[in-house]
Amino acid sequence: MQTQQNDFKHHISQRYNEELEEVRTRFLSMGGLVELQVEDALHALLDLDSVKAVAVQEKDILVNQKEIEIDAELVRILALRQPAASDLRMVMAVSKSITDLERIGDEAVKVGRMAEDLTREGESPRGYMEVRHIGAQVRLMLRDALDAFARLDIEQALTVIQADADIDLEYQSAMRTLMTYMMEDPRYMTRVLNVLWVLRALERIGDHARNICEQIIYMVNGADIRHTNIAHIEYSLLKQRPSSQSDRKET
Amino acid sequence: MQTQQNDFKHHISQRYNEELEEVRTRFLSMGGLVELQVEDALHALLDLDSVKAVAVQEKDILVNQKEIEIDAELVRILALRQPAASDLRMVMAVSKSITDLERIGDEAVKVGRMAEDLTREGESPRGYMEVRHIGAQVRLMLRDALDAFARLDIEQALTVIQADADIDLEYQSAMRTLMTYMMEDPRYMTRVLNVLWVLRALERIGDHARNICEQIIYMVNGADIRHTNIAHIEYSLLKQRPSSQSDRKET
Repeated sequence: MQTQQNDFKHHISQRYNEELEEVRTRFLSMGGLVELQVEDALHALLDLDSVKAVAVQEKDILVNQKEIEIDAELVRILALRQPAASDLRMVMAVSKSITDLERIGDEAVKVGRMAEDLTREGESPRGYMEVRHIGAQVRLMLRDALDAFARLDIEQALTVIQADADIDLEYQSAMRTLMTYMMEDPRYMTRVLNVLWVLRALERIGDHARNICEQIIYMVNGADIRHTNIAHIEYSLLKQRPSSQSDRKET
Repeated sequence: MQTQQNDFKHHISQRYNEELEEVRTRFLSMGGLVELQVEDALHALLDLDSVKAVAVQEKDILVNQKEIEIDAELVRILALRQPAASDLRMVMAVSKSITDLERIGDEAVKVGRMAEDLTREGESPRGYMEVRHIGAQVRLMLRDALDAFARLDIEQALTVIQADADIDLEYQSAMRTLMTYMMEDPRYMTRVLNVLWVLRALERIGDHARNICEQIIYMVNGADIRHTNIAHIEYSLLKQRPSSQSDRKET
């Protein structure tokens, strides 16, 4: 009997582990889809490729579906498995982070729409260099954020949080340049404004990538570092070594 | 012995109910604070009152703190009480909705900053009527959303979701008007652009109020209606009567 019961326990535990692993995989797969949305949106804009702009919107339906599916799975795990410690933190971090992923998708859709407008009404005389530059950085942030999630890498998560501060500054500077340009030559104002909206969407994508990284740090370390100054974050994370998976509750 | 054990059980259950009730109260208190932020931000802008603009930022520190505290309490309840059914949905809905509340606070801070800019650099010649109008509607949406949460009122939540669609249209129309104005008279472009950013922030506050109402419907009804067409939502909610608190698990 004892053996059978142990086997059963082992089975439950194994199945539970698989479920947690599957949530992680699904999150990363949703992330991969959102990465493609951002990539397509930028191509649509920079290469005046309206096919790519449509692709962004098509992928958005899938992304939204994945958000709902993952949330349902998280609630199922909470109800049936009653996760504790790092497992519970993982569930809550994924619950928060899929909202950010979905909103990155929404911002990509906005960029796609601006790309369609600019393809139809003619290119903006300015701003593409800024979009290319900030776009590349934001794509890297998103990739690094997903990579940090996959590898539970706090240091990489911190790098993304730092990168967000840089992007905010570059965004401010790009905005000033384009506003000065519009005032000097208001003929193409509508087109330049479209590029301004694109830059704003990119800046927000950076914010969402940062949010995901804050959740990664919470998941791995248990520290809620939202609304905390970056210098303080680094100090407190250096003081406190990351807790390993060893506090995982086996059911 | 039996009686004692029952008493103990009753005690646990009562304490648990109190904890859930306290989370609801804290959520509404955070909501009240965010409502004040939006109110102050609009006053700062429309009455050129820079004291109010500072007040918005001061309240933001409290709002951020409340977000972190409520999330910590939710994780504590999940770990110790293992809520099920409608209790679990309430915990998850609050977890998602406090993110929206906090971001409404962020948008209010942005409006406050624009108000400071406009107070310093001079008023915009246009756009205040639109801000007044959309601002009043968005404040009403937020109030109704919090009210729907307090009363678990699905119908009111649906009204807010519908109002968001109206506001999106009014926002688009206001944007076109102001862009036309800027093209005709680019002298005050910077100031008018500040008002454009304010309108965008207000529109986003409406989006967040809508998100909260989607969570209310999930909490009361168990239906995840995100990314669903409003006509479909009404149809499926009419088909399915809201599940009451009767499926609450008593521990």
